[in-house]
Amino acid sequence: MSAPKFVYVFGGPRTEGDASMKNLLGGKGANLAEMCSLGIPVPPGFTLTTEVCTAFYQQGGKFPEGLTHQIEDGLRHIEAIMGVHFGDPQNPLLVSVRSGARASMPGMMDTVLNLGLNDITVEGLITSGGDKRFAYDSYRRFVQMYGDVVMEVRAQKKTDTDPFELIMDGLKEEKHVHADLDLTWEDLKELVKRFKGLVKERTGQDFPNDPKEQLIGAISAVFRSWMNDRAIAYRRMNGIPDEWGTAVNVQAMVYGNMGTDCATGVGFSRDAATGENRKNGEFLINAQGEDVVAGIRTPQQITKADSLAWAKAQGVSEADRSAKFPSMEERMPEAFGQLMAIYDRLEKHYRDMQDLEFTIQRGKLWMLQTRNGKRTGFAASRIAVDMVEEGLIDEKTAILRVEPDQINQLLRPVFDSAAKAKAMGAGDHLATGLPAGPGAGTGKIVFHASDAEEQVNAGKGPVILCRIETSPEDIRGMHVADGILTARGGMTSHAAVVARQMGKVCVAGCGAVDIDYEKGTMKVGGRILKEGDWISLDGFLGQVIAGRIPTRPSEVLQVLFEGKAPGTDSVYSYYHKLMTWADKYRTLGIRTNADQPDQAATARAFGAEGIGLCRTEHMFFGGDRIQAVREMILADTLVERERALAKLLPMQRDDFAGIFRAMDGFPVTIRTLDPPLHEFLPHKEEEIRDLAKTMGVPFERLADKVELLKEANPMLGHRGCRLGIAYPEITAMQARAIFEAAVIVKKEGIKVIPEIMIPLVGHVNELKAQKTLVMATAEKVFTEMGLRVDYLLGTMIELPRAALTADEIAKEAEFFSFGTNDLTQTCMGLSRDDSGRFLPLYVEQKILPADPFQTLDTAGVGQLITIACEKGRKSRPDIKLGICGEHGGDPASIAFCHKAGLKYVSCSPPRVPIARLAAARAALEK
Amino acid sequence: MSAPKFVYVFGGPRTEGDASMKNLLGGKGANLAEMCSLGIPVPPGFTLTTEVCTAFYQQGGKFPEGLTHQIEDGLRHIEAIMGVHFGDPQNPLLVSVRSGARASMPGMMDTVLNLGLNDITVEGLITSGGDKRFAYDSYRRFVQMYGDVVMEVRAQKKTDTDPFELIMDGLKEEKHVHADLDLTWEDLKELVKRFKGLVKERTGQDFPNDPKEQLIGAISAVFRSWMNDRAIAYRRMNGIPDEWGTAVNVQAMVYGNMGTDCATGVGFSRDAATGENRKNGEFLINAQGEDVVAGIRTPQQITKADSLAWAKAQGVSEADRSAKFPSMEERMPEAFGQLMAIYDRLEKHYRDMQDLEFTIQRGKLWMLQTRNGKRTGFAASRIAVDMVEEGLIDEKTAILRVEPDQINQLLRPVFDSAAKAKAMGAGDHLATGLPAGPGAGTGKIVFHASDAEEQVNAGKGPVILCRIETSPEDIRGMHVADGILTARGGMTSHAAVVARQMGKVCVAGCGAVDIDYEKGTMKVGGRILKEGDWISLDGFLGQVIAGRIPTRPSEVLQVLFEGKAPGTDSVYSYYHKLMTWADKYRTLGIRTNADQPDQAATARAFGAEGIGLCRTEHMFFGGDRIQAVREMILADTLVERERALAKLLPMQRDDFAGIFRAMDGFPVTIRTLDPPLHEFLPHKEEEIRDLAKTMGVPFERLADKVELLKEANPMLGHRGCRLGIAYPEITAMQARAIFEAAVIVKKEGIKVIPEIMIPLVGHVNELKAQKTLVMATAEKVFTEMGLRVDYLLGTMIELPRAALTADEIAKEAEFFSFGTNDLTQTCMGLSRDDSGRFLPLYVEQKILPADPFQTLDTAGVGQLITIACEKGRKSRPDIKLGICGEHGGDPASIAFCHKAGLKYVSCSPPRVPIARLAAARAALEK
Repeated sequence: MSAPKFVYVFGGPRTEGDASMKNLLGGKGANLAEMCSLGIPVPPGFTLTTEVCTAFYQQGGKFPEGLTHQIEDGLRHIEAIMGVHFGDPQNPLLVSVRSGARASMPGMMDTVLNLGLNDITVEGLITSGGDKRFAYDSYRRFVQMYGDVVMEVRAQKKTDTDPFELIMDGLKEEKHVHADLDLTWEDLKELVKRFKGLVKERTGQDFPNDPKEQLIGAISAVFRSWMNDRAIAYRRMNGIPDEWGTAVNVQAMVYGNMGTDCATGVGFSRDAATGENRKNGEFLINAQGEDVVAGIRTPQQITKADSLAWAKAQGVSEADRSAKFPSMEERMPEAFGQLMAIYDRLEKHYRDMQDLEFTIQRGKLWMLQTRNGKRTGFAASRIAVDMVEEGLIDEKTAILRVEPDQINQLLRPVFDSAAKAKAMGAGDHLATGLPAGPGAGTGKIVFHASDAEEQVNAGKGPVILCRIETSPEDIRGMHVADGILTARGGMTSHAAVVARQMGKVCVAGCGAVDIDYEKGTMKVGGRILKEGDWISLDGFLGQVIAGRIPTRPSEVLQVLFEGKAPGTDSVYSYYHKLMTWADKYRTLGIRTNADQPDQAATARAFGAEGIGLCRTEHMFFGGDRIQAVREMILADTLVERERALAKLLPMQRDDFAGIFRAMDGFPVTIRTLDPPLHEFLPHKEEEIRDLAKTMGVPFERLADKVELLKEANPMLGHRGCRLGIAYPEITAMQARAIFEAAVIVKKEGIKVIPEIMIPLVGHVNELKAQKTLVMATAEKVFTEMGLRVDYLLGTMIELPRAALTADEIAKEAEFFSFGTNDLTQTCMGLSRDDSGRFLPLYVEQKILPADPFQTLDTAGVGQLITIACEKGRKSRPDIKLGICGEHGGDPASIAFCHKAGLKYVSCSPPRVPIARLAAARAALEK
Repeated sequence: MSAPKFVYVFGGPRTEGDASMKNLLGGKGANLAEMCSLGIPVPPGFTLTTEVCTAFYQQGGKFPEGLTHQIEDGLRHIEAIMGVHFGDPQNPLLVSVRSGARASMPGMMDTVLNLGLNDITVEGLITSGGDKRFAYDSYRRFVQMYGDVVMEVRAQKKTDTDPFELIMDGLKEEKHVHADLDLTWEDLKELVKRFKGLVKERTGQDFPNDPKEQLIGAISAVFRSWMNDRAIAYRRMNGIPDEWGTAVNVQAMVYGNMGTDCATGVGFSRDAATGENRKNGEFLINAQGEDVVAGIRTPQQITKADSLAWAKAQGVSEADRSAKFPSMEERMPEAFGQLMAIYDRLEKHYRDMQDLEFTIQRGKLWMLQTRNGKRTGFAASRIAVDMVEEGLIDEKTAILRVEPDQINQLLRPVFDSAAKAKAMGAGDHLATGLPAGPGAGTGKIVFHASDAEEQVNAGKGPVILCRIETSPEDIRGMHVADGILTARGGMTSHAAVVARQMGKVCVAGCGAVDIDYEKGTMKVGGRILKEGDWISLDGFLGQVIAGRIPTRPSEVLQVLFEGKAPGTDSVYSYYHKLMTWADKYRTLGIRTNADQPDQAATARAFGAEGIGLCRTEHMFFGGDRIQAVREMILADTLVERERALAKLLPMQRDDFAGIFRAMDGFPVTIRTLDPPLHEFLPHKEEEIRDLAKTMGVPFERLADKVELLKEANPMLGHRGCRLGIAYPEITAMQARAIFEAAVIVKKEGIKVIPEIMIPLVGHVNELKAQKTLVMATAEKVFTEMGLRVDYLLGTMIELPRAALTADEIAKEAEFFSFGTNDLTQTCMGLSRDDSGRFLPLYVEQKILPADPFQTLDTAGVGQLITIACEKGRKSRPDIKLGICGEHGGDPASIAFCHKAGLKYVSCSPPRVPIARLAAARAALEK
């Protein structure tokens, strides 16, 4: 039996993969193959599939059988095209070894370049046309990289300097030179020797000379890097499964560092921060690719326009700029022209914004990578809408291009323009950097990612993380920060890329900022700011402003709620178009959870089509109400209790009337009293004493009542319909308030659609008992007031027993609304209030795939929902099914609800737009 | 379309029903028909089916169409046989109207006798041969009974005297007579007039004269009495569904009160208290049937032997006895002979102990009822065993004749014989009554049922309820009392019947007791005892003893645990035979929940075949252990925690070794730590302060830890395997203790079968993580100690999610044990600690059929078990399935477990015999 196909070649006359094979070849590998097929210049190579990675881990770090042979075939493919041979002393083939997963994970895994060099082939490199300095510089880079990645010779602590860099610094000191470029080829040769010595010293092993051994080592190391801490953390944050694995690409080296006619760069076909349709990117003359991303040298801009803007941000004069940092457009106009044409070609081919990597070797342009570019929510919305208007994609595709949560960015606060103008006027505008992440960020300065984490976790946020530049080690800190400011690096620097992806506000490459980590200070705009000082970042414009600038609702909200006129190309215009399309394609209804008229109005502006959950108890807390509620609880007799309830009746009625008016024509689901009564009483002795005084009751009586109502497990206690059954007069009062309000509002000419929902039903008899009461009250009110109102009566499904006996319950219920919060708590036996002690550990240790209170546990809780839907429909085919737990605003959970055939989801007002988009995507992804 | 058959006639040449038709005709109706078919003399009549009752309630108290016509046919059937006519002014037919449900509910529903009398027919009764006094006495009884039952003229409060009795007492005063018998026929005629006046005054309606109207009214009233409070309470206590309904029997009247050659009586074919094979019963000369049960007149004994014993109990001289209270054997030898023959005939026919009612009218014996007699647990066991030995029934039938809970009576404490002898010697033996309910009862005297309830509910029990006689209103009080003592009434009095049925200790008809309800005192044996004084009852011997006599384990336990030699016909001998047969026919294994070697030994003596649940945390509380446990909880570092755990290791190991030794050859399921850690710490400030001092740690540190561990819902909190995952070192220590103990004990030559059970698993990954740890520990221990022990590793299924994903979990688990306590809590969202506030109301209002913590909720929780069994078997066909929740000792739940195909149930040691019997019954009832 022959081994499965592990290796796919690309380039020259033979390309085995294409863009559709991402799962097998990874994004990079699939796209390299695709580019080859399009005739775009790509160095030839081959891809080891993700299945090899899986096998590698299953076999405890060993290669599957037959792989080595296939690798050799791959090498022969490259050799044939390039006309050089791996390990050839005269004209050696050198290769790069790069990771490439299904989803892009920039900078998270390892890479080895210049592989194939040893003391013999380095001479061959010179013989075949490279100069000595280039050859030995390549060699020392290779040994350094291989030593780090494969042989794990690294700084022992994160704060230590890289040991190879230390050796290099030492040699520079010996030679009394400052720059790397000042080292001669002999110096570099010496460095290679010293580097190998370090490797031997640290590992006890000789640095491998055999190119094939080097290759096997590098491939293994790249596979191993799939499971490094950074990569795991990144996947967790981005919901990428560990099981996917990475592919590995082995590709002929091309050099951007063979001289000044060489360069390397990255670029985007549109603006990844704002979505504007303008090609952009950065490059470095005479450099290797990693130099651009690593942020070690200051990159130059590809277009002249960007170059001018960059110079302004960095405070570089035009003379300096054109001399030292000219754009590619100016410096290499021919390659620039080719590159622009490839940008166009690839964007049209992929019908999406492209993120490119290229190298120019002695004037010849080589493409090393293309992929769909990551982008902010702003950019995602704008690009999707623009591309529809350009005829590149259709509406459905546009919807699938925007992640629901990205809509959040469009709704985030912006700076109050008056306050900002005042600060700018007062001289608080310290500097302008690159607008790498749009939005308004304000917070206290921290200089280290770990400090950011610590302060935010301790509730001492918000913070702005200020760094000279960022590295992959900083991602947790970036995640918790409200904004990121870097002094160095361009629009494709680590900080800029990660911030965009996280949707963080970011000002990058702000050269005017001078950070001193040791002192914990930052000089900028003539001031010295220290850790803890407030600072504000305008990520739309790249401005750095001292102090804390107050914010206002986003432009979208200003248009929706304040009547602001939306401009063309405004954030609102993209929001509005996307939402219109989403509504066109979604089949799920979107309702909101609201219990005040103003919330209801907000939700309608966001597009809610009704209220899925109106919690009546929230109404109990305002003003005089809590007083009446407490009187009710303290009542010892039915008469006393009814007297207190009579006080609550008009208040509840007014609330309901207000909500019905706000929801004219849309259904309003009102849940009867749910929480245990002790939630309405104080629990600390002093508070009880105060309240007793206020209420004019003896302290002991109140204290006794509090004690009596105490519960061991209130979540499973006397609450929900259990209250309404023990105290039918409470349900009767609430039903009366609802029906009286409904009749009053209907008489005003408003369309009222009340849906009364009984909570925490576990047995159909509970529902029957409450239903009888509600229906009798309705009839009484309709007779008294001389007008009938149609209404539905249903129940929450929030206990496993309810789901399992949904066939019985559906005989009495006209609708089910899944209360997924409580259903998760009971199905999993997990108290939301207490699980903080172990749930993070569970997610960390992969015992659970995600926090089940954020994303619905489909295997368990979802199974109950499916069972309940099936059984419910069996008893009542037209039963209305919805969800009102907090999962109603979670895109993954919404996708589940769509599949389960629910009629609607209900979420908090600000999640409504996200839910609309998620529902449309669920319908389209079907 | 003709109406369904609602009426079945019996007697004379045509009998439509038989004993197999109990569901339709009720027990009484079916047996009357059966007796007719056997040729036993039964007054003719007809039965209205239970379906009529159902229809009656469905139609809101109306008769189904066609019923009246069928009733008339029934009347014609009686008339034809008796040669008299209903309503005939010359020779009227009179009938009785009696309830008769599927299950006997003695005294709970209503009866009307002498129906058909009015001012005209009463004269016909005289004409046709009755004397005037008899005729008018029958008439006034009829009006009184009908007025009460049908027209609802009764005492307004329970404590008030019956208004008819008040009128009668008034008349007696007017006439200056004392006894009812002293009233003349004219007086009785006057009474009829006054009674009718009372009815008119109270109801505004005339008393009905038309016999057919009377009959319809009486039938309706009997149906209505199915839903009276007493009947509902009785059904609830005895698990009889409301849906069954009652049948109604209309039967020609025969008279035990036409003169001194008439009598009426009841009897048992064996002793209903002890099960001894001796016919017995009571009768009254010249009386109607209800007089015997009502306890108004002192009944005479049927056999001479009983009569002599009774006289002794009542302190009646032989002269008085033979003159005033002779036995039937002496007084009516011919009828006695016939009756004894019928006893034999019926017992052989039904192959069970019979409870009979009869009337002798002018020397002719009529049987009015036969049914299987209710009996105590002692009697049930003995009769079942005796009948097998007599060849009447087989072993399987014997098993089905004893309710599992009746076994409890055999295991209840008996008086310490030395202490009792001492009390008897000290003159504390106050009197001897009838031994109506076997057992030893001791408690504080109460004179009213409501006081009994109040005191027991307030935790002030135990109480002995002392009454002149009891009535159906007293059943709740009897239910909570530890014993019942009555001054009046025989072995078939209300007190005796109900006590036997409830399995209560009872001394009945103790004439030496003179109770003064008003003073709250009781004169007996020359002493005056007052409410609250301690008293003891020996229900085996009928002895009433002053003071509180200490108890000892039951005879069964003395034989099992103290090596007492069992006598023949001893309680133990019946227990033993029944258990042997139960073990022969059951297929379910019975294990026990035990966590100490002595408990394990007890359970084995009771027949447990292994431990189904050993809770390791119970071991944490003893002696020094709690100290080490607290050190472990307080530990801030892994090292500290491991140090504390190291102290616990040898203690746990010793416990396990002890249990393994006690369970030689049987499996022992050990659950790893389950409760949240805060259960091991004190919670009150003072206790925390004390402990801090003892442990030598600062108060604040301990208080902080207590605060930190506090949980909103501990039931759903950081417990079960969640602890073992957060602190793997705890699981590792416990696993080590188990395996070290297993190896040590195996080396002693004992067969060890450990089963390690991981609690509160919700996701298979939790089990995987703990399993890996346990298995690694096992390997380490086996290597260290040089011996392997086979073991199983499984999990509790106690969360809905576990049941729903049992297919996944079964891949890792070798067994499932259903933790039905927690499964009930989570499935129903019901905290056992808190549900006391509303569960009683739920059962009362029939929202739930029973307390789900006592009897498994099969529709919900049971559904999860069924799902889990199916899914579990799908993944692992040989998976071992058991249950270890408290339902493991509940017969109804055991029947469910049998049906679900579980391999075993596990319950507390004293429930083991009950579970054995219940399992056998489940297997036989299949």
